[in-house]
Amino acid sequence: MICCLTAVFHAKPAFARQRVDLIVAHGTVVTMDGTRRILDDGAIAVQGDAIAAVDSNANIDARYASDKVIDARGGLVLPGLINAHTHMSMSLFRGLADDLSLDDWLNKYIFPAEHRYVTRDFVTWSTRLSMLEMLRGGTTTVADMYYFEEDVAAAMKAAGMRGVLGETLIGFPSPDSATPAAALTYTESFVKHWKGDPLITPAVAPHSIYTCPETLLKDAAALAQRDQAPLLIHVAEAPFELEKSRHDHGLTPVQYLSRIGVLAPNVLGAHCIWLDQADVRTLAHFDVGCSYNPSSNMKTAAGLMPAVELLAAGVAVGIGTDGAASNNNQDMFEEMDLAAKEQKFSRMDPKALSAAQVVEMATITGARALHLERQVGSLEVGKKADLIVVDTGAAHATPMYDVYSAIVYALKSSDVRTTVVGGKVLMEDRRMLTLDEPAILEKAAEYAKQIHASFGTRKSPAGR
Amino acid sequence: MICCLTAVFHAKPAFARQRVDLIVAHGTVVTMDGTRRILDDGAIAVQGDAIAAVDSNANIDARYASDKVIDARGGLVLPGLINAHTHMSMSLFRGLADDLSLDDWLNKYIFPAEHRYVTRDFVTWSTRLSMLEMLRGGTTTVADMYYFEEDVAAAMKAAGMRGVLGETLIGFPSPDSATPAAALTYTESFVKHWKGDPLITPAVAPHSIYTCPETLLKDAAALAQRDQAPLLIHVAEAPFELEKSRHDHGLTPVQYLSRIGVLAPNVLGAHCIWLDQADVRTLAHFDVGCSYNPSSNMKTAAGLMPAVELLAAGVAVGIGTDGAASNNNQDMFEEMDLAAKEQKFSRMDPKALSAAQVVEMATITGARALHLERQVGSLEVGKKADLIVVDTGAAHATPMYDVYSAIVYALKSSDVRTTVVGGKVLMEDRRMLTLDEPAILEKAAEYAKQIHASFGTRKSPAGR
Repeated sequence: MICCLTAVFHAKPAFARQRVDLIVAHGTVVTMDGTRRILDDGAIAVQGDAIAAVDSNANIDARYASDKVIDARGGLVLPGLINAHTHMSMSLFRGLADDLSLDDWLNKYIFPAEHRYVTRDFVTWSTRLSMLEMLRGGTTTVADMYYFEEDVAAAMKAAGMRGVLGETLIGFPSPDSATPAAALTYTESFVKHWKGDPLITPAVAPHSIYTCPETLLKDAAALAQRDQAPLLIHVAEAPFELEKSRHDHGLTPVQYLSRIGVLAPNVLGAHCIWLDQADVRTLAHFDVGCSYNPSSNMKTAAGLMPAVELLAAGVAVGIGTDGAASNNNQDMFEEMDLAAKEQKFSRMDPKALSAAQVVEMATITGARALHLERQVGSLEVGKKADLIVVDTGAAHATPMYDVYSAIVYALKSSDVRTTVVGGKVLMEDRRMLTLDEPAILEKAAEYAKQIHASFGTRKSPAGR
Repeated sequence: MICCLTAVFHAKPAFARQRVDLIVAHGTVVTMDGTRRILDDGAIAVQGDAIAAVDSNANIDARYASDKVIDARGGLVLPGLINAHTHMSMSLFRGLADDLSLDDWLNKYIFPAEHRYVTRDFVTWSTRLSMLEMLRGGTTTVADMYYFEEDVAAAMKAAGMRGVLGETLIGFPSPDSATPAAALTYTESFVKHWKGDPLITPAVAPHSIYTCPETLLKDAAALAQRDQAPLLIHVAEAPFELEKSRHDHGLTPVQYLSRIGVLAPNVLGAHCIWLDQADVRTLAHFDVGCSYNPSSNMKTAAGLMPAVELLAAGVAVGIGTDGAASNNNQDMFEEMDLAAKEQKFSRMDPKALSAAQVVEMATITGARALHLERQVGSLEVGKKADLIVVDTGAAHATPMYDVYSAIVYALKSSDVRTTVVGGKVLMEDRRMLTLDEPAILEKAAEYAKQIHASFGTRKSPAGR
């Protein structure tokens, strides 16, 4: 009898609790909300694809019940990381051509490889390979620019990952379009097809000012503005781009883009390295988002993005990996680490760009850069349930005195245990639930064998 | 009868094969020997603590047999990585104080924390935590400088890891010695105790020219030269060190060390950032080894090591992580990646410091920097059997066109599957065999709780 009374006394009033689709329980919840609230023993209730509640575990437990509970004990619960710039379809070229001049890299390897191999099938499998790497490393949203974005979108939708996908427009024949006009037609149809999709935001992506004629840039901007689509573009990445822009237009790349009417609050500029103070003010004025890609910028020796000045001016600067042909990983933990280190080093100031700022850039500020801040970037009621659980128990992250420092300087992509996008669990305890990992790796090996045979390499053992 | 005949026909002549203690079979063996031989389906036979043979798997299989065979299929077999500079005992301070000026970092956090917490017990557990991180990440040899190196040595010997361990001499009271004279006595006894040990090379470690009076530097050099011990010292790490040296001695740090007779072929200099061309020539002349520590140098904004010039001058430049209080990992895969990227970026030259050069720095050139090249750094007959097996099947490393590129830019410490030091398997399929991982993490949590309580932190959730 005592036993029964105890049971009744302790039983939770399940009938009163709201049923939800998913509860993430007992984690250290790093919300990245307006007050940067951190909940020590926190929990999140998810209904459909959105966050229904973020609270102490005790409060969530009292108010919600679910058949699906993810125990985040010993882990951090973070907003899913946002990769602000990559080319997923290039991951099958990972490591094909390193330590080369830009000219050799492009003309001897990348352009011929793209010409020869990039098909709908290639793009589909390369995107899957990239998603496999990124979901394993805690990235839930990605801004992508490449060709055949219809197939990229289909692969992402099937895997359940979130993307802002820009179909590339370029001033010469591309793998999916014989002419820029055909590419514009493809883009128009692509935007129409995916507009309003809960996971896929279709975008327009003129490659850069040095590869697109002015008419194409203007047509792209008009299309993006008419259809309220984001516009993705490489901006001021290399010294030659700045020189060419000054020579051709008498203006910096940013001032040129401003003059021809491309800059607007729907723009996401990748790299944004060769800027002067007026350019920084212009980007802030137009509410342009920027992607800082430290690994790629260092490896290709492109230069230093003035990320500190851009942030100080109020520009939303996210962090991107760039494609695996120039990084060679798509790992946001590495990029966060490098972002802080490159800024400190380049300014000879160990206080430049703190760990807390860098975590913002990879989450809520990255969401602003992608113009998706109403949907993702923080763990708040009503936002999409994009979240990751990160183990903190490894030797390399022990001890943990400061949560932001741990995320940026100590934790690694391999510590990500579970990845959820739009309320759907895509990786649980490191098992992939929507991607067929063995099939992807096998297909990658097949493509690699062909590519290896046609390009040869310098020191590869087995060409896998 | 046919069955029996077949069996006889196919049976290997086991009676003719030499018994060895360990065979690592079916890996892509990256030897880093004089010809940089890579064996596609290679194997290694180990007898005692040394390599008995490196050959094709077929040849090893024909000539050797062992009760212990590690199947390295799908993996690279590399020489164990050499961490050319760290302070293992500081890993319990990981992340305690980031994004601060050098002054605040040292005076508000590190010096008080060392004064309060660094004991023999602290050093023992912190060293274990560091070894856990490093062995998991493929590091088999480490050059360490700190206090209580007797206890560091004992912990390493028990775990089976290789080290060049320098007892720190400094011009003020330290955690283990009330006076520099006491530290010299400790060092003398430490060197005597460990001299000739197969795993532990005892060393003398005057901290730097700005913390040691000249007499102490000279006494340290005399002791090291008399006992034929390595001498480890921080050299030209920060601008203030260069300024102070010029002010006090009218010389750069390197020229000052040369003038007072410290430089010799037993010296390993950490950092070596603020060098002029004469300094580079001087370091080459004395056959001084150097440690390049890119993460630490970037995070603390110390400056750029002229690694390319040093290598061109023939100086052995290894790669080090520095301590976890300033990195915050001890991860040689991250350091390799950063070494290449920092040099390319700083010189605006994507061809500066190739992946192949970086792998050399982390293996055979690192061994030269530690003056251990006769023992370790490559997979060659007669050398110590220090090797690692690295999985290549993860999405983030797929495809692999070039083995050195994959090691530096794509593979991660989490890909290390098995770690062998001196023929002894210390980690197999990621299980630690000589370190009690749960006990180490628990003890780290205990220390962290105390340290957290006394220092507080800024944004930590639970203080673990």
